[in-house]
This record gives sequence, structure tokens and C-alpha cells, in this order.
Amino acid sequence: MKFSPLVDELIHALKGLPGVGPKSAQRMAFQLLERERKGGLALADALQQAMSDVGHCHTCRTFTEEHQCAICASPKRNLAGQICVVETPADVLAIESGGHFNGRYFVLLGHLSPLDGVGPDELGLTLLEQQLASDDINELILATNPTVEGDATANYIADIARQHEVKISRIAHGVPVGGELEYVDSTTLALSFNGRLPL
Amino acid sequence: MKFSPLVDELIHALKGLPGVGPKSAQRMAFQLLERERKGGLALADALQQAMSDVGHCHTCRTFTEEHQCAICASPKRNLAGQICVVETPADVLAIESGGHFNGRYFVLLGHLSPLDGVGPDELGLTLLEQQLASDDINELILATNPTVEGDATANYIADIARQHEVKISRIAHGVPVGGELEYVDSTTLALSFNGRLPL
Ligand SMILES: [Zn+2]
Ligand SMILES: [Zn+2]
Repeated sequence: MKFSPLVDELIHALKGLPGVGPKSAQRMAFQLLERERKGGLALADALQQAMSDVGHCHTCRTFTEEHQCAICASPKRNLAGQICVVETPADVLAIESGGHFNGRYFVLLGHLSPLDGVGPDELGLTLLEQQLASDDINELILATNPTVEGDATANYIADIARQHEVKISRIAHGVPVGGELEYVDSTTLALSFNGRLPL
Repeated sequence: MKFSPLVDELIHALKGLPGVGPKSAQRMAFQLLERERKGGLALADALQQAMSDVGHCHTCRTFTEEHQCAICASPKRNLAGQICVVETPADVLAIESGGHFNGRYFVLLGHLSPLDGVGPDELGLTLLEQQLASDDINELILATNPTVEGDATANYIADIARQHEVKISRIAHGVPVGGELEYVDSTTLALSFNGRLPL
């Protein structure tokens, strides 16, 4: 024990956050105790609720506490007949901040990685194929990261999609090779949407 | 709304932590949701309990959920008859990690700062004076930070202590001027204890 059991436990739990080391955890704990007790309680509530109630959208797999996320539930977003496939919910946010895409998304929550046990099932590809088989969808835009794994995943999905009546494209210009989609500015992302190439 | 209400709220609450910007808050939220739900719930519990139950030691003012902290409650630490005055609970930890001080502490929870409304009352100096007036205490070691405010605070407390039968000293060598005590290594801190000068 370094301080008191409750303070030690708080510091230990804060260290569990990504990017938070022992010293930052201590600073966070003391700042919360000294001047942010209300903020600390609000964070406790937010964590409790989100960890317990947030699941995945039954259509696109992004995080939501509802059956469907706001985008999938919007009739306007379904009109376009486009599905954009991304790796993470953060990628959805990056593309949405550009405001140039009006279709909806499919979130893989990862990429193919056989060594880590991530195959087509883990990425929900059966669910995606059901959607491609429906008449509503006429274009599939593959926006996985331009990495080896992201490219392999895009090609795998393109092979599935070719069995259905959909245009298939891969976002192209602007996203730096080896980079991560969520860090690209919205203009570059717009370019890469406009310059998408048929696969 | 960017994601769903619960996810947005979690990101917003995480941004309240010191040193956490919007991007880190988002990363933290997604990592917790994706692979650390148990850790997130444990953090919620730890926050809830610490924010509600942790108060201040009635003797030295450091953080504790008990009436007295472990150091003040230890008869061994009271035998020495020494009180070391520091600004923050983190300073206590820094000195304790050296293991060379066997007395107890008094934690000001700040320093004199009239412009911010921090005067002798806010630093608990009446409580400290009551302890100096008792027969048990024979030495007061002033270990406030070697900054303008820390020095002024040490001098102010020394003036009070001179009205009582106690040796008064200020830690001296090793702590870099303008630096913060909690970042000094334990050897340097040991030196500064050994080289303390009477005031
Ligand atoms: Zn959705
Ligand atoms: Zn104490």
C-alpha cells in the first residue's frame, strides 16, 4: 500500500487506460480527488453505463446501445444504396466528418489476421453478404486501411461481392500507404472517395 | 451526436481527465468497449468509491478514507518527534520511496497564494500549530517546493514555529531550484534531508 486502499485502487484502475503510465495515473487520481470529484463521479457513471449497455449495431456492427445505429436507422442514408466497409468505428467518424459520403457503413471491427484467429466470421462477413444479396445495395466501397492486412481484407471481400450484382470499388488517392485512415484529414479523404477505382 | 449518446458521454467524461485530449479520449473509449469492459467497470467502481469515501487524514491532511492515514496511525512514526511539511500527497510518496525519513508528515495541499485565495486557513496551519504546541514534536522539517511560493510558505510556517519549542529546518541540497519535489530521485531527496539547514 502506498496511499490508502481506495486511492491505490483508483490509481491502479486508471493505469488500465491506454497510454496512461503510473505517474499520470497518480496525477489523475490526485487531481480528481482535489478538485474534480463531480467529474470523477460523472466518469464513473458514464463508464458503468457504457460498459454495460453499449453493444453493436445489428446492421453495421458499430458501437451503439440501440438495435441499430443512427446512420443505419436513417432512411436517407439507405437511399444511396452504398455500403462503405471500414475497419473501426473511429474510421466511420473520420469519414463522417468529411460529410461527402451519404451511404451507410459496415464496420469489420478489425481485419483478416489468421495468426490472431481473426477470420471471416469475426469480421461479420456473412452479415455483410446478406446485405449485398438484397436489392437495396448497388455499390460496395472498400475503405479498409491501405496496409497489407487491410488490402488483403478488401480483396477477400471483393471476391465475395463479385458473386452479387454490385459495383465494387476501393478508395484510392490520398490515403498514405501504411497509414491509418482515422488520422487522415477530411479533404484527403474526399479525394480518395472521388478517385475510387473499380476492383 | 457523433456516435451514440452513451459512447459520446463516455468520450466526453474521459476528456475531463488531466492530459487527455479529444483523440485520446476516443481511443480510450473504443479500447475499453472493444477489449476492456471488465477493466472499465473496475475503473467505474474505483472512481465511485474513491470520489465518495476518500477524505483527508485528521492529523496530516493527506488523502485517506480512514480517520487517520497509515503513517499518522503508526506509533513508530510518531516516536521520532519529527513533522515534515510538504505541499501535496505526491510529495509524501516521493519522500517515502527514499525510506530515509521516519517521522510523520503534514500536507498543506497547496502553498500560500493570496491572489488565489489560499491563505493560512486553507493550508490548515492552525492544525499544524496545535501539533507543534504538543510535547511530542521536537523538530519541524520544511519540505515545500523550492519555488518562490514554496519558500514564502516555508518562511511563514517557520515564523509560527519559532513561538514553540521545536527545531526548525528546511531541506536543502539537491532539489533543483524551480523544480518540483515529486520528480526528484530518492538519492537526491536523501541528500537534501541530510543537508537540511536550521532556519
Ligand atoms: Zn449501424
Ligand atoms: Zn496522516
